Amino acid sequence: MSDVLQLARDLIGRASVTPDDAGCQALIAARLARAGFALEHLRYGEVDNLWATHGGGGPVLVLLGHTDVVPPGPREAWASDPFVPEERDGMLYGRGAADMKSGVAAFVVAAERFVAANPRHAGTLALLLTSDEEGDAIDGVRRVAREFRERGRRIDWCITGEPSSKVRLGDLLRVGRRGSLSASLTVHGVQGHVAYPEQARNPVHLALPALQALVSRRWDHGWESFPPTSLQLSDLHAGTGASNVIPGELRVRFNLRYNPHWDAPRLESAVAETLDAHGLDYTLGWHRSGEPFHTPEGPLRAAAREVLTALTGNAPEESTGGGTSDARFIAPLGAQCIELGPVNASIHQVDEHVRVADLEALPGVYLALIERLLAR
Amino acid sequence: MSDVLQLARDLIGRASVTPDDAGCQALIAARLARAGFALEHLRYGEVDNLWATHGGGGPVLVLLGHTDVVPPGPREAWASDPFVPEERDGMLYGRGAADMKSGVAAFVVAAERFVAANPRHAGTLALLLTSDEEGDAIDGVRRVAREFRERGRRIDWCITGEPSSKVRLGDLLRVGRRGSLSASLTVHGVQGHVAYPEQARNPVHLALPALQALVSRRWDHGWESFPPTSLQLSDLHAGTGASNVIPGELRVRFNLRYNPHWDAPRLESAVAETLDAHGLDYTLGWHRSGEPFHTPEGPLRAAAREVLTALTGNAPEESTGGGTSDARFIAPLGAQCIELGPVNASIHQVDEHVRVADLEALPGVYLALIERLLAR
Repeated sequence: MSDVLQLARDLIGRASVTPDDAGCQALIAARLARAGFALEHLRYGEVDNLWATHGGGGPVLVLLGHTDVVPPGPREAWASDPFVPEERDGMLYGRGAADMKSGVAAFVVAAERFVAANPRHAGTLALLLTSDEEGDAIDGVRRVAREFRERGRRIDWCITGEPSSKVRLGDLLRVGRRGSLSASLTVHGVQGHVAYPEQARNPVHLALPALQALVSRRWDHGWESFPPTSLQLSDLHAGTGASNVIPGELRVRFNLRYNPHWDAPRLESAVAETLDAHGLDYTLGWHRSGEPFHTPEGPLRAAAREVLTALTGNAPEESTGGGTSDARFIAPLGAQCIELGPVNASIHQVDEHVRVADLEALPGVYLALIERLLAR
Repeated sequence: MSDVLQLARDLIGRASVTPDDAGCQALIAARLARAGFALEHLRYGEVDNLWATHGGGGPVLVLLGHTDVVPPGPREAWASDPFVPEERDGMLYGRGAADMKSGVAAFVVAAERFVAANPRHAGTLALLLTSDEEGDAIDGVRRVAREFRERGRRIDWCITGEPSSKVRLGDLLRVGRRGSLSASLTVHGVQGHVAYPEQARNPVHLALPALQALVSRRWDHGWESFPPTSLQLSDLHAGTGASNVIPGELRVRFNLRYNPHWDAPRLESAVAETLDAHGLDYTLGWHRSGEPFHTPEGPLRAAAREVLTALTGNAPEESTGGGTSDARFIAPLGAQCIELGPVNASIHQVDEHVRVADLEALPGVYLALIERLLAR
């Protein structure tokens, strides 16, 4: 059995549901210590974070990952135990197989090989692992990044091993992420009886034109490789269930995924202006999940494109789509960030899996990248 | 203590929460039997209905009421026990004091007095009481009216003792009711992740223009004394509570209160046409609560106007507004219907009450009306 397959199996066998690391980082730390890495355990609240470095000074290349996984749901929905790795038909099954214990295992194996072959490499090779990427992410990389900012730590490049590939390993290289901003809106009206609408103010009727204005607005036409900014209503609740009562309030939640045309404060103002223009009586709360980031053309993107083109025979799609990742916290430190990992089709689902051949190819991909960036 | 006050207190003391009559009709039946009325007890399912007649042939005047009340809610919210009648400051308190045990008590006292003074009156004087007006009304007057239709029973005039007055007794005479039609609409979309809106179909976004079209439509400009037809959205639900999920469906409930410009089938078609015009994938269910009715100028309205003008010194407002009542089931039998009863400000609320002076004036009002219609 290959080294990376063995390590991925060992990690899947540890039921590390957020924020419980379940010993994954201890296992990795022991290996990296043997390979000559300096280790720092950063535990905040219930969250374990591991910072491992080899070498010193710049440039600093960080391999960023997480050891936690989302809950598996009912055991009986899975063909095999989600925390007992099982190979069937060339696939390795288990919670975290794709998101992202294969990426983490490949990071470790690639890092060991690189420092063994390049003991006096340029700059610093670092691994940063957290056990709170799938949760509320307060005490994970967000907290570590704040600590780094206070210490004045510089990061040049960051590779996240999240499952970015669509159909085959390496067909997509993530070079940025949209920002995410969530709103909780309550539109206030006056409750009443449907037979006497003149004595009530139906908040749904009042809100409809404003909501229509928000969802039909073209916020922009995209930005470089970013798709256009998008607003989606996710929740809408009004009424008591009684068909003869005009509700007193309407509660709405919506989310904006936005490109670097915008930042959170300007979007918040634009939404409030729309609501004000429609004369609504409302309460509006915001949750800022992360500003957008974008990695322009440069050594990191060029190296990744070369490596993936050599792997697949085709240049990868360079994308800024998709959800958020912990790279949103590292990018504001000035780092260029990319995301590159296995196929994401089964993540967060039952029978999550990774192709064994992809898993075994991954250390070579990461090693080639590290070599291009840090080998002398 | 006056006869009508004593009877209203006796009725309030019986906790007749729908559909439980709690002995109210038995008490009334005993009195009416003594007064010479013929009685028919029509029990359907859990519902008691009482049909009491005096005289024979036409014209037939029906006094229509209900002995059931809505639940009182928590005892501690009331200043005194809702089922122990209590007089304070010239008011009689208790559940049903206004809706409508005062009206029923006044009917009984007026009927007794009328037949005592007019043993050989014209036509038929009838009382129809049900114990399911506040509930789903399946086995109450709806069912009785079906029975009457099958028997070929004719009703000329119907006086409902529902609390119609606004500020003082007799300031409003109800001469019709709008129809009521309720819809349950589900708009189907495709669930997805807010980061990938192109892979989902947000049913809220799709539905907004159609909902806006429905609520902004001017259905008509009113009809005689009826207000314009009105549509009110009462319930709106979409989403799981997670701000990153595009919901798969939107559930909407709305209600139409409509005047005789419309009937239920034409309104249902008009709504479906609007939804179809917006290309929605939807499921739509309807509940028809009652078609509108209208009592034109004639002996009943004229008599009621005269009696109320004599009582208050002013002509009453003649209105077709407000909610529905059991008159909706009697009107289709060809009856002219009016509603006339005490002040409705406290109905369905805690500390429901009636002014004792109003209660004591009511039998005289009903007696004067009966005399104008049936005395020889």
